[in-house]
Amino acid sequence: MGSLDEYFKCLSDRERAIFEGAISMGALFHQFTGTPVNQNTLESLKTAIEDSIRLQPSIEDVKVGINLDDAENEFGYVSLEGKMLDVKITSKFKNVKAIIRMKYIDRLKYPLIYVENIKEE
Amino acid sequence: MGSLDEYFKCLSDRERAIFEGAISMGALFHQFTGTPVNQNTLESLKTAIEDSIRLQPSIEDVKVGINLDDAENEFGYVSLEGKMLDVKITSKFKNVKAIIRMKYIDRLKYPLIYVENIKEE
Amino acid sequence: MGSLDEYFKCLSDRERAIFEGAISMGALFHQFTGTPVNQNTLESLKTAIEDSIRLQPSIEDVKVGINLDDAENEFGYVSLEGKMLDVKITSKFKNVKAIIRMKYIDRLKYPLIYVENIKEE
Amino acid sequence: MGSLDEYFKCLSDRERAIFEGAISMGALFHQFTGTPVNQNTLESLKTAIEDSIRLQPSIEDVKVGINLDDAENEFGYVSLEGKMLDVKITSKFKNVKAIIRMKYIDRLKYPLIYVENIKEE
Repeated sequence: MGSLDEYFKCLSDRERAIFEGAISMGALFHQFTGTPVNQNTLESLKTAIEDSIRLQPSIEDVKVGINLDDAENEFGYVSLEGKMLDVKITSKFKNVKAIIRMKYIDRLKYPLIYVENIKEE
Repeated sequence: MGSLDEYFKCLSDRERAIFEGAISMGALFHQFTGTPVNQNTLESLKTAIEDSIRLQPSIEDVKVGINLDDAENEFGYVSLEGKMLDVKITSKFKNVKAIIRMKYIDRLKYPLIYVENIKEE
Repeated sequence: MGSLDEYFKCLSDRERAIFEGAISMGALFHQFTGTPVNQNTLESLKTAIEDSIRLQPSIEDVKVGINLDDAENEFGYVSLEGKMLDVKITSKFKNVKAIIRMKYIDRLKYPLIYVENIKEE
Repeated sequence: MGSLDEYFKCLSDRERAIFEGAISMGALFHQFTGTPVNQNTLESLKTAIEDSIRLQPSIEDVKVGINLDDAENEFGYVSLEGKMLDVKITSKFKNVKAIIRMKYIDRLKYPLIYVENIKEE
């Protein structure tokens, strides 16, 4: 596609891996929260989220957990919320891998997006 | 769940079928447009859209077509747009079925949501 | 734009008003839930929701209430959820007006979309 | 809120500023694309996007441009697409500011998210 280097010249390889993983986690949250879901549709929703986010630049792997334990209403489904999500995105740029997580932190009442690990090979 | 009748007392069964199908089509468009997609992820995205929208009240069936023919960029995927969608939602309330469609109409440059058929059994 | 009549020939004027209002309510829910919001940004978010949904076909008026009372976290904002919304959409087709509502119903634990009134002038 | 340090211990201040800005840009794209918009509602939509994204952690400023030049249909509005957006997000962590951009790049046919500048004070 021709080089993108001009757009990222102020980033190291490590920073680029962090950058791309973070974009994709913000994207995942705001694209899919609100989706109707219950135990019967959990698997197809997880698969579609993983498949679609894996298309984004520098994304190597996406693992999505959805916790529906406390979520139930009289209609037999709920809208997907951030607090139900437990996600791990692995982004890779050159020889650096960043593991980005989203997890609901009870103490904060907030689905926190954070960095679990960064590996330079 | 106790009756919902009080909330719909000004609707006939036929109007209720139309109403519920229309809500779900508006929901589908605004929930899923923007999702990254390419030929490899088309099937999992279609399945997740169909499964999730089928959970909504009075929805009996959902069929999603996604046309990626003209959609390609240098990154190997695109964001799902209304003009790629060809959707058929069947809503059913008591003995009435409404077939709601969304299809891109070239003449209008617009993904039109309309009613294909209503059947009273 | 040329006639759309061919797409709606199985709907009465009254059914068309119901149909268009229902699409827009489904759209509103799935477009805007997830948006970061707090007391300081409530007004600009309400205005943008009302302005954008009012653009849709046959929509005459949109009134959005957002209830943030119980919603607070350590970061000073929350993601907009269906249960915070109290919305009234007025759709009009020819001489029929439909008043569509979305409101969280405690008994159902669900943001119900229903029809408040239909007026034929 | 108690310290978040444990969640970010593998990031430098500079990396943290990049991380938070990138999350918010991914969020902005996937939250707001799809919103109905025309010239009359451009300002209220821009304001709501700026106000809401500015609430996210470490975001100091958000400037949104929306280019509707080529976008028009028979209904007098369009759905917001990535290619219409020109966004600048300034994230700040301790003494580091990162300027994150999203802009449609014709050569790539893609709304690229990239880093415009990083300043350490």
